[in-house]
Amino acid sequence: MPSTVTALVGQSATQIDTPALVIDLDAMERNMARMAAFVQQHQLLWRPHAKLHKSVQIAHWLEQAGAHGHCVQKTSEAEALAAGGIRNIYISNEVIAPTKLARVAQLSQRLHAQGGRLALAVDSLEGIARLAHAMQSANATADSMDVLVEINVGQNRCGVQPGVAAVHLAQAVLAQPMLHFAGLQAYHGGAQHLRTAAARQAAIAQALQHIATTRQAFDAAGLRISLVTGAGTGTFIHEAASGVYGELQTGSFLFMDADYAANERDPAQPVFEHALFVKTQVISVSATHAVCDAGHKSHAIDSGLPTLHGLPAGHALRFANGGDEHGVLHPDATAGNASGWLPALGDTLWLIPGHCDPTVNLHQYIVGVRGGLDAGVVECVLTVDGRGALT
Amino acid sequence: MPSTVTALVGQSATQIDTPALVIDLDAMERNMARMAAFVQQHQLLWRPHAKLHKSVQIAHWLEQAGAHGHCVQKTSEAEALAAGGIRNIYISNEVIAPTKLARVAQLSQRLHAQGGRLALAVDSLEGIARLAHAMQSANATADSMDVLVEINVGQNRCGVQPGVAAVHLAQAVLAQPMLHFAGLQAYHGGAQHLRTAAARQAAIAQALQHIATTRQAFDAAGLRISLVTGAGTGTFIHEAASGVYGELQTGSFLFMDADYAANERDPAQPVFEHALFVKTQVISVSATHAVCDAGHKSHAIDSGLPTLHGLPAGHALRFANGGDEHGVLHPDATAGNASGWLPALGDTLWLIPGHCDPTVNLHQYIVGVRGGLDAGVVECVLTVDGRGALT
Repeated sequence: MPSTVTALVGQSATQIDTPALVIDLDAMERNMARMAAFVQQHQLLWRPHAKLHKSVQIAHWLEQAGAHGHCVQKTSEAEALAAGGIRNIYISNEVIAPTKLARVAQLSQRLHAQGGRLALAVDSLEGIARLAHAMQSANATADSMDVLVEINVGQNRCGVQPGVAAVHLAQAVLAQPMLHFAGLQAYHGGAQHLRTAAARQAAIAQALQHIATTRQAFDAAGLRISLVTGAGTGTFIHEAASGVYGELQTGSFLFMDADYAANERDPAQPVFEHALFVKTQVISVSATHAVCDAGHKSHAIDSGLPTLHGLPAGHALRFANGGDEHGVLHPDATAGNASGWLPALGDTLWLIPGHCDPTVNLHQYIVGVRGGLDAGVVECVLTVDGRGALT
Repeated sequence: MPSTVTALVGQSATQIDTPALVIDLDAMERNMARMAAFVQQHQLLWRPHAKLHKSVQIAHWLEQAGAHGHCVQKTSEAEALAAGGIRNIYISNEVIAPTKLARVAQLSQRLHAQGGRLALAVDSLEGIARLAHAMQSANATADSMDVLVEINVGQNRCGVQPGVAAVHLAQAVLAQPMLHFAGLQAYHGGAQHLRTAAARQAAIAQALQHIATTRQAFDAAGLRISLVTGAGTGTFIHEAASGVYGELQTGSFLFMDADYAANERDPAQPVFEHALFVKTQVISVSATHAVCDAGHKSHAIDSGLPTLHGLPAGHALRFANGGDEHGVLHPDATAGNASGWLPALGDTLWLIPGHCDPTVNLHQYIVGVRGGLDAGVVECVLTVDGRGALT
């Protein structure tokens, strides 16, 4: 296996090899404290999405800060967290393959026996029938697994249409003694990166309408919705203010990426700092540009290219995609680098990834630095336990 | 660690879990035979780029087909191949960090002792001085490492300007007794995906001008260029026809991605087939679209979204990005799906990735299928040995 460890505990941050994924632990902990205070103030449950960090250690830290459980998107992500001692896990996504559902059923029984809980989202009668079959095959205990009915609140991806279709799914869940109908999954992914605060608020207002429609259908059927869960870093202040959502799934606030930072901040939203960076080194310099050793194998570019962090005034650089292994750095005159300053060969720089979740997935380890990126010390090297957990 | 093995040898291809990275071994071997015949016919050296496949096993297969060595982009990729018994490795990229150069020097001595060879590209006097220092510190044997001077032939990324600047670098290499000046690195990455055959030919004609300019400067200095190396799947017929390049670095032809397939084929170019696929499953279906379990955590999207493979006439689908974990499939009326056909819940589909290299990097294993994607059998499960080899 290749050498993917880029630092050792106790080293200076200047010694971290490149490219490396690095957390500013102080900034991350400030972000965590701000979100913990918010959910406590609003008396909400908090189940941060582990698709962000993919790390057992960070999941434990989030529990210490007040999270009562964790979301994941894939069965294998749930298995990775469970292997690290996490006991309250929600696969906030549909699982359809019988082989995967057998694993879901087994994991639910293991967590249940440990006093924990596994939950799964569903959006089809067929999916519920397959899950029930898997639970029967696993000789599952009564009421041993939570099921949430996903409704489409505006993202137009998974989820049934709001209203009576959701009631039919809940009834199908209620007909299965091993399954517990635990509420509605109502996450509006499409709203998270609407740039203006007003547009995000309007999108969540629409989602709340869809939930209201659905609740009316449940009322008419004499069924109760015990929990509505959803929300992300872009919109959670609105879900929290609604009185409708009982649980927030916010995860990205912990690291804050360039895409979230590009949102206009709503004054009601806590301020979150960038806490995740890619450290990179300049490996080539010409008259017009410099080239660093971080390409899109080091950082995801689905939500835009990285931005540069911590450059002094007059030293602004524009990052251009140089392929899998290279970033091309040009002087950014529009941002004050009129002199055409370029970094020197061997200089190291800090990048803010466009999107944290898939960036974390590209790395086996995350280096945790205490005391600032430039002067700090490596306090921990975390394993990305859920890296490549696709199935 | 999460369950990342998606198939076992001997299973039917229908049993491969999703999402999974799958090679059609028959198609891959046909591609390999076509390229091997081409390089033999043109009496060229062939050093395929391992940044495509990142697999020791595939590197060995390529050697059996006629490759005399392998390119990589990173020190840790070289280490991963060397650990698997590969002995002739060229890091076709600049390495600047002293810690990495110490590893480069160590690896060069290990390979040299085994009768193999390590090579490195350089584009600065500082880089050569640092490499020489690392070789001295490793007590390197005389002439034990190859160094290629990279010139910028049009990509405007790394590489010195063509002409006398390259001579100065070669002289600096020649002044170091442990280093062997092995020729010019002259790869034009920017030419590979120019869509028309004429544009690609024109770009390589420009590159050949830059090489000619450089050769004149070497002649004037009384220095010989023993090898010019470069070329990719998009342009290699031109480098091969030039009589200037002595070595081709083509790798992507082996798998062929959607981006290369979008190039207009030059009649002189051998036909290559798609051989690398992501198998995915439909996990949600609505009236307007279906959702599959492959998002951009399963396939790289830097060069465009995946296309669908093997759908029958009238069943064309358009793949839309659904985030890290989801693909959204819409009926493609413009491609003949006028009826609005959608796959059913649980159906599996084959995706052709937009860009193979970073797609491979997302997976720990590649499943090799013999006898066709649908009816075939799993013959091997390959490790992506160079996955995450960033440093």
